[in-house]
Amino acid sequence: MEYRFSSRVSQLKSSAVRDILKLTQGKDMISFAGGLPAEELFPVQAVREAAGRVLDQGTGALQYGLTEGYFPLREQLSERMAAKGMSVTPEEMILTTGSQQAIDLLVGVLTEPGDTILVERPTYLACLQVFALHGLNVVSAESDEFGMVPESAEELIRKHKPKLIYAVPTFSNPTGRVWSLERRKRMLGLAKQYELLIIEDDPYGDIKFNEENYPSLFSLGGSAQDNPVLYTSTFSKTVAPALRTGWAVGDSRVIGMVAKAKQAADLQSSTMDQQILSQLLSGFDLDAHIALISREYGERMNEMDTLLKREALPGLNWVTPQGGMFLWVELPDGLDAETLLKCAVQKGVAFVPGSSFYADQPMRNTARLNYTYNKGERTVQGVARLIEAIGEFTARS
Amino acid sequence: MEYRFSSRVSQLKSSAVRDILKLTQGKDMISFAGGLPAEELFPVQAVREAAGRVLDQGTGALQYGLTEGYFPLREQLSERMAAKGMSVTPEEMILTTGSQQAIDLLVGVLTEPGDTILVERPTYLACLQVFALHGLNVVSAESDEFGMVPESAEELIRKHKPKLIYAVPTFSNPTGRVWSLERRKRMLGLAKQYELLIIEDDPYGDIKFNEENYPSLFSLGGSAQDNPVLYTSTFSKTVAPALRTGWAVGDSRVIGMVAKAKQAADLQSSTMDQQILSQLLSGFDLDAHIALISREYGERMNEMDTLLKREALPGLNWVTPQGGMFLWVELPDGLDAETLLKCAVQKGVAFVPGSSFYADQPMRNTARLNYTYNKGERTVQGVARLIEAIGEFTARS
Repeated sequence: MEYRFSSRVSQLKSSAVRDILKLTQGKDMISFAGGLPAEELFPVQAVREAAGRVLDQGTGALQYGLTEGYFPLREQLSERMAAKGMSVTPEEMILTTGSQQAIDLLVGVLTEPGDTILVERPTYLACLQVFALHGLNVVSAESDEFGMVPESAEELIRKHKPKLIYAVPTFSNPTGRVWSLERRKRMLGLAKQYELLIIEDDPYGDIKFNEENYPSLFSLGGSAQDNPVLYTSTFSKTVAPALRTGWAVGDSRVIGMVAKAKQAADLQSSTMDQQILSQLLSGFDLDAHIALISREYGERMNEMDTLLKREALPGLNWVTPQGGMFLWVELPDGLDAETLLKCAVQKGVAFVPGSSFYADQPMRNTARLNYTYNKGERTVQGVARLIEAIGEFTARS
Repeated sequence: MEYRFSSRVSQLKSSAVRDILKLTQGKDMISFAGGLPAEELFPVQAVREAAGRVLDQGTGALQYGLTEGYFPLREQLSERMAAKGMSVTPEEMILTTGSQQAIDLLVGVLTEPGDTILVERPTYLACLQVFALHGLNVVSAESDEFGMVPESAEELIRKHKPKLIYAVPTFSNPTGRVWSLERRKRMLGLAKQYELLIIEDDPYGDIKFNEENYPSLFSLGGSAQDNPVLYTSTFSKTVAPALRTGWAVGDSRVIGMVAKAKQAADLQSSTMDQQILSQLLSGFDLDAHIALISREYGERMNEMDTLLKREALPGLNWVTPQGGMFLWVELPDGLDAETLLKCAVQKGVAFVPGSSFYADQPMRNTARLNYTYNKGERTVQGVARLIEAIGEFTARS
């Protein structure tokens, strides 16, 4: 029997990260590929206690809930966002299955097939899949160490008239870069000038290795009402991914439309998970926990950074990240990271080739290394294997 | 600031059921509207113990998992399906956020905008929203007490060349009807003859008030491989909705495509919930629990059925359901259920007007009554209020 699939999904490539994850389940494989948090740091005891308190409330906790999500958690999140200068009410927020779903729903309600979206170069690969499934035309603006380059963005805006900008301004996936305040203001200015909306994806903003304050584009855009920025974040990196809880905030008209689309998509996300998180926020010091994982991730990043510096491999370049989960390396000229990966996997180390993160004209000699999942001897071993693999290619040429 | 929304989502009506749910949170409102299970029957202690066992396994339980869902739960579900004559491997199954998401993803990978889908008349309203968002043309075949009428279906198939059929053959939402074995075989025959696929939505099949056996269309279609039927079900009615876990099974090529689409949609559903359900299945007699809720729901249905029969209101007709969660009534001729609802809500009772469940030409004098959420005095009161509301209209005319 032949099954006919929609043209968009047929063309869709499976996520390289997820596919590599499947290949790297072997015990001796050291994976810098997945964007996995350190599981030994998950607050499992606090989650256990929170789950107990949810079920202490009786059977009502297991009933259907609102599409918009568990109201007390939206209240708590509004308070947490206020502390970061973001003014938003629970009605201007919807809870989703991770921030991935928030982005998918936002794109679905804000675009028609054939519309153009402007992204950073490179950008988060699973969002490229979202844009492809929604039939969008993706154009990528140049990015440098200060963020998206406004001149490049403006040229593309004039030429392609995009409807949306998608960006991860704080500790980007894959590059780990942070937009400067000046760039944030200029990009927001461009959005207002050309009447574009910005989807600001902020899963990593809390994972910081310094004392800097990076105001969100959303906070610079004013209150939720009439804000050209739609902001999303998640508990996946700060608490645990298995609880699959993200959120989107923005003007209530946009959030209302997202709720309609979500009704059709899945009625609602897990209220079990949302209630666990709500209980956790009231009985557990999440900020102390975030400080702890940030410290630990900073140390792990330093470990990898130091090991790479020690090798001082000619042509291997990277910027030391100030937060987030990824170290983005440029490999020696002419070395294709996809070719390197095959060799690296044989040596027992995995990463994600940078080409996956480009909407067009990939820089093939780039790779994304995750430093949060491994530490100590495994990081030492993994970097050694990676350097060995690179060495085989540079020795050959 | 003006936000421009995609044409499809702008046209989408919010679900009448969900909107009424919001209006009926008042204490004295008796709602027959929502498709809500009886929350006092949720196995909250078993869920608590299962959650504890999940977290006993350590921090790994809170990590990212596979897009396809927690493997042990897929194995357990395969075994449970085998016991019902459905032959499926864990690789031919994907876990989703309720069966609502399974349907949304299946429709997304199997259709292009502008394609036609054939449904029953009336049909599940939240699926009409899914079809609208995917830009489908919906045509509805006549249905009678034995199910979809093959002659009507075949005429529409020839005329509109649909790509898919969507149906709830066992205890339909909204009508509670069951397709006869003969109808099941004939509809499957039509699907094969005209090379159509069928999405068989089966959230209610386990909730039975008799000893009959209703083989799924999927089981009649053979093993998953090359089966024209894609089958979905859920734990929302048998365990608890808050755990938001449904599944889809079918040919591995279809499930593979669904997994790709799901990667973009939300990466994966809650593995916390999936692991809780897996633990629950191994330490709790779910079949005994299903028997218990079926017995209880049968009694509640009888209560409502008896109260309505006692009134013997002229022009009020219904078929006593043999399972599921809904009683579908035809109101006296000329009585519009939407008009009736406004009066009923003032009297403190809610239901869903039948018009919501029609893709076209609604029968306006129909209503869906849920009998699983209320019982005893509340059902007595609710039915009395409903009869009183109807009486006001019939007295007037």
